[in-house]
Amino acid sequence: MNQPNNNHRIYGINNCVTFLESKNSFTINSIFVCQGSVAAKNEKLKLLLTKNNKSVSNLDNQIFNKRFSFKHNQGIVLEFRGKIDKNIEDLLIDDKDCCLVIADQIKDPQNLGQMLRTIECAGVDGIILPRHNSVHVTDTVLQVSQGAFLYTDICIENNLVNTIKLLQSNGYWIVGLENSIEAKKWFEIDYKGKIAIVLGSEGKGIRKLVKESCDFLATIPMRGNINSLNVTAALSAILFERNRQLSND
Amino acid sequence: MNQPNNNHRIYGINNCVTFLESKNSFTINSIFVCQGSVAAKNEKLKLLLTKNNKSVSNLDNQIFNKRFSFKHNQGIVLEFRGKIDKNIEDLLIDDKDCCLVIADQIKDPQNLGQMLRTIECAGVDGIILPRHNSVHVTDTVLQVSQGAFLYTDICIENNLVNTIKLLQSNGYWIVGLENSIEAKKWFEIDYKGKIAIVLGSEGKGIRKLVKESCDFLATIPMRGNINSLNVTAALSAILFERNRQLSND
Repeated sequence: MNQPNNNHRIYGINNCVTFLESKNSFTINSIFVCQGSVAAKNEKLKLLLTKNNKSVSNLDNQIFNKRFSFKHNQGIVLEFRGKIDKNIEDLLIDDKDCCLVIADQIKDPQNLGQMLRTIECAGVDGIILPRHNSVHVTDTVLQVSQGAFLYTDICIENNLVNTIKLLQSNGYWIVGLENSIEAKKWFEIDYKGKIAIVLGSEGKGIRKLVKESCDFLATIPMRGNINSLNVTAALSAILFERNRQLSND
Repeated sequence: MNQPNNNHRIYGINNCVTFLESKNSFTINSIFVCQGSVAAKNEKLKLLLTKNNKSVSNLDNQIFNKRFSFKHNQGIVLEFRGKIDKNIEDLLIDDKDCCLVIADQIKDPQNLGQMLRTIECAGVDGIILPRHNSVHVTDTVLQVSQGAFLYTDICIENNLVNTIKLLQSNGYWIVGLENSIEAKKWFEIDYKGKIAIVLGSEGKGIRKLVKESCDFLATIPMRGNINSLNVTAALSAILFERNRQLSND
């Protein structure tokens, strides 16, 4: 599913509508529509496709399904090109309540895709990933994100400790989500102002040096037995606690 | 992946360890271990398997992989039987802060599995699903739940409106999560006491009659563009807001 270089692919009605409606700097390579499919009958999509007429190929059922065998495509596949990740300088906007998420070595593209979706819905400005030992922006991530990649700055950095130092020197407070005795409960942290929230990988948590660079540690105590909250569920809990605090201003 | 009747299957080290460590009323049919796999080398698992010695079949690599071709099995598959869902009466425990989740026609087994996981971690007592037009407890749901099904009461009801009336007559307040002008912000609701939280299906929301049965409606305002928070992310936001309120008692 991964395309070489800066070529990417999304599919399904919602994803393609979100892409075609957004102002983005990507170039559409091709749009493939399966004749007689739900996508071909969708009025909103029909209108958007008319505007991109030159890129659209209408394929008959058999040819489409032979070429695109993956599930849930609903009869539309959109291929585009362009660089998705930005430079860290682009993320350092001068907004008083700017919020970034730092994902330390997330491995599962489903998790990263869901994180992007939650981040975008919660109004977070961007996400920073390490270059090594982390999933990056694969087509699966784009697909699961439901178009969130179009509205969220994604940045890949060589050294997260250095990135945290750069953020701190730009006035950001760094909150690491980690179970440890020094950690405060997640709602006892003040999320107002410029903030970056660090999440560890599934299973291993935040790496030692990254954790030591955080200004605060937050923990979400479990009340059950299995003690294994998914990283995206934890992210949602913390981001909407931030939104609660901002709403109460 | 679905087994007939009350036969179920889970796999992977964490899932199988959680199952074997829990006190449950299920009967193990068989445990298949792939020789030389990570599961076969796992010390914790080895000890637990010794106690269930009679059920364990050690298969060589080729035979195991031919039989169990699905990903992420780590070399262990556990098959068991027993009824997973309970009666509604079992869920009506007399705890002052009892909390239930009602999922109105969730379709995606991944979502239901993640919801179970979040529910268990957040200390929710049970989940109620409608009999029709809803995913039930398939093996995918069990697998994604990471063992949460062992500690969470699951109940399948014919008519959610009647179920809500029953809960109300037992002292429960019903909160529906829905975008509507009558809805309060999610953190303005008081989640203390006996409460049931109703979530709608992916895309369609809560059905009209179910929504009208709710005592309160809560909304989680989005701050982004795509406006499509995943149902499990929304559930996490609301359940940890409840835990925040309970912690502040």
